[in-house]
Amino acid sequence: MDLKDKIRVIEDFPEEGISFKDITTVLKDPLSLKEVITQMTDMFSDLEVDIVVGPESRGFIFGTPVAFNMGAGFVPVRKPGKLPAETVRHEYSLEYGKDALEIHSDAIEKGMRVIVIDDLLATGGTVSATAKLIEKLGGVVVGLGFFIELTELSGREKLTKYNVKSIVTY
Amino acid sequence: MDLKDKIRVIEDFPEEGISFKDITTVLKDPLSLKEVITQMTDMFSDLEVDIVVGPESRGFIFGTPVAFNMGAGFVPVRKPGKLPAETVRHEYSLEYGKDALEIHSDAIEKGMRVIVIDDLLATGGTVSATAKLIEKLGGVVVGLGFFIELTELSGREKLTKYNVKSIVTY
Repeated sequence: MDLKDKIRVIEDFPEEGISFKDITTVLKDPLSLKEVITQMTDMFSDLEVDIVVGPESRGFIFGTPVAFNMGAGFVPVRKPGKLPAETVRHEYSLEYGKDALEIHSDAIEKGMRVIVIDDLLATGGTVSATAKLIEKLGGVVVGLGFFIELTELSGREKLTKYNVKSIVTY
Repeated sequence: MDLKDKIRVIEDFPEEGISFKDITTVLKDPLSLKEVITQMTDMFSDLEVDIVVGPESRGFIFGTPVAFNMGAGFVPVRKPGKLPAETVRHEYSLEYGKDALEIHSDAIEKGMRVIVIDDLLATGGTVSATAKLIEKLGGVVVGLGFFIELTELSGREKLTKYNVKSIVTY
C-alpha cells in the first residue's frame, strides 16, 4: 500500500502558499490507519523504549497507539496552560514571534529511554523543543519518528544528533 | 488493576472549585495505558463499527488506538478552523457563551456505524455536538464510550437515546 496516495494535499491552507498535507484521509481508512500505525510502531522496535512522547495535538493521534503497541507509556507535550500539574516549559522562536511547549515535571524519570512521535517534520521547531523538554527532565531521546517529512524545509539538519525516521517524504 | 487509583485529582484546575481528573498519570504508566485502551476497545467489541470518532484533543489519545484495535477508521472532530477541507459545523451553548465543533464533510458515509470515544463525560455538551455532526453526515451513532464519567453532572441524561459506557465514575 502506498500511504502517500492516501494523503490529501490542500493548497493555501492554513494560509496562501502553503501546501497542506491532510492526514485525515489516511486515518479514516481502516487499512491505511492499520498500515501507518504498524509502520510507526516498527520504526524503533529494535530499541528499548520506556516512554513515547506526542506533541499536541496530532502527535496524540500517532503517539498513543505506538506506545500501546510497544508496551511503553505515553506522555503528552502541550501548549502552555493545558497540563494541570507542575510543568517544565521551553520557549522557541517562530518566523514571527515565539511559542512555548510544556511537559509535566514528573512525566519522565532520569535515564528513561524516550521516543517522540509526530505527524509531520517541517522546520523541526516543535520536535526540537519537545526533545529539549525531555532532556530537561533527564530523559534520553533515542528516536524521533514522523509520518511525513517535508525535506525542503531541512528540519533534519536541526536534528543531526538524533535518530530521525519518517515514512513519507515530500 | 484499579484504574481509578492511577488518576491524579487536582483541585482548582482550570479554575477554582473544579476538581480536575488528570489522566496523564494513567497514560505514562505502560500497564495502565494497556489496561485502559484494552477496556475501551472491549466496550463495543460486540458491535460492527466502521468509524471511531474522537473529539479534540484528549479524544485523539483514546480514539486512535481503539480504532486501530477494532480495525476501524479514525475521524477527528475539531475546534473551528483546524480541519483543512470542507467541514460541517455544530454550535452549542456553554454556561457562558457558545462553542462550536467541526467534522470533515466527507469523513463519514451515509449508513456507516460510528462510535465516539473520549476521555470524559461531564455535562455531555461536547459529545452531544459530536453525535449531531455524525448524524448530519448520515452516520449511525452506535455507542459513546468514556474513560471517566462525572455522574453528578448528569451528562448521561442528555444522551438517553444512545448506548453510553464508561469505565471509572466519580
